[in-house]
Amino acid sequence: MSLKFVFIGAGNLATHLSIRLKQQGFKIQQVYSRTEKSAKELAEKIDAESTNSPKSISKEADIYIVALKDSVYDEVLSQIEFGEKLVVHCSGSMPMSVLENYAENIGVFYPLQTFSKNREVNFAEIPVFVEANSAENMKRLTETARKISNSVSQLDSEKRMYLHIAAVFACNFVNHFYARAAEVLSEKDILFDVLKPLIMETAQKVQELQPNEAQTGPAVRFDENVINKHLKALEFDSNARELYNSISKSIFEFHKEINE
Amino acid sequence: MSLKFVFIGAGNLATHLSIRLKQQGFKIQQVYSRTEKSAKELAEKIDAESTNSPKSISKEADIYIVALKDSVYDEVLSQIEFGEKLVVHCSGSMPMSVLENYAENIGVFYPLQTFSKNREVNFAEIPVFVEANSAENMKRLTETARKISNSVSQLDSEKRMYLHIAAVFACNFVNHFYARAAEVLSEKDILFDVLKPLIMETAQKVQELQPNEAQTGPAVRFDENVINKHLKALEFDSNARELYNSISKSIFEFHKEINE
Repeated sequence: MSLKFVFIGAGNLATHLSIRLKQQGFKIQQVYSRTEKSAKELAEKIDAESTNSPKSISKEADIYIVALKDSVYDEVLSQIEFGEKLVVHCSGSMPMSVLENYAENIGVFYPLQTFSKNREVNFAEIPVFVEANSAENMKRLTETARKISNSVSQLDSEKRMYLHIAAVFACNFVNHFYARAAEVLSEKDILFDVLKPLIMETAQKVQELQPNEAQTGPAVRFDENVINKHLKALEFDSNARELYNSISKSIFEFHKEINE
Repeated sequence: MSLKFVFIGAGNLATHLSIRLKQQGFKIQQVYSRTEKSAKELAEKIDAESTNSPKSISKEADIYIVALKDSVYDEVLSQIEFGEKLVVHCSGSMPMSVLENYAENIGVFYPLQTFSKNREVNFAEIPVFVEANSAENMKRLTETARKISNSVSQLDSEKRMYLHIAAVFACNFVNHFYARAAEVLSEKDILFDVLKPLIMETAQKVQELQPNEAQTGPAVRFDENVINKHLKALEFDSNARELYNSISKSIFEFHKEINE
């Protein structure tokens, strides 16, 4: 018999994960969101019921997936009686133990990806990290994860937080440098489009090489001539200039340490 | 009649560019490099002569492409008599005028990409930026560039330097954050491989969205709870911690300005 799920939360992660679960044959029974519109919108996509009242959350599902902002966990979860049902959350930097206040059978189901509205992702390639408070719960989560992804690993709460930190560096911070680059170009009326092949190639390189082997540019070769020209050219934008200076130093120090 | 080229320099850029020119029907007559081995290695790939003596550089080519490190221009170029031949360089942050000391007909031929040994790139997609000191020289460079790339633009020296700065942000600095992420993971014995789908998706997103629209993560939503957890978790690595703190602030300030 196929497992039945309830989603608590209807944001980007809940949307992508619930659609993928349904695709792979699982039943999504209900979607809860604090805003009725969000709950309905997702529920319609996956043929589920919707509610915006924690008290009306179904007691009939097998697994409850909490995909809420970290800051609203208690407000929502304290109103739900989970009994012996399995309750998992999807947060990188919340320990599994945060669920101990609300349920007996708990775990974590953490797909590592940046999810946006209206962008399809190939879920089979997304690494999913699971954690649970018993062997049986772990088995259920692992089996579920394997149905939707080719890359499933067990990871404890502490390591998952470091994984989340690494993801902040490799995704959120990286995107900020795309944004800073776009800003520099827009000051000179150059279209961001010209950087797109470079951005793709930079990402593709580290699919094969280790990032420290892929490092190029003036900072890693300590080309003071170019660095000083660039710092002077950025005098009109003190934020960009400060970033340029500190990241160049960071690159230089990082590679000095590696070579020592 | 097909144009004949001499390459002055035999590094990654010279290698990729000369191979592409030859593919598209141009003749590469000679490769100069300060080290005989490098000159020969590239010359063999593209059916050209090689030399490591500036005095032996052929006078018979149509276009001389200078693909040297900025710091050795004078040492090499001051030994060559170019006469009326067209001499171009490939440096992002060197003005075209640097060639005025050595030749009458000058220009710049700047392909915007990160070139590595042993990695093929799709040259047709690489934006090429040209500059020249006469309409005729511009015509020759533009026609040449259009034979090897689908994206050819004219750009003056000042704007090209800002383009180079943007490329440093979007490629070199981005790669450094991949490297910092890899280091955080390695401290916790997690394989860098798990980040690869996230890195690709982050790059792919900005092929369609503007980077400021694609920004996600704790910093842009000013999630102090998560940020403080991460800063505490990075206490063992003061460099990574300082980067985390300053880039989070930079993201926050950047988006505050946009929203104002």
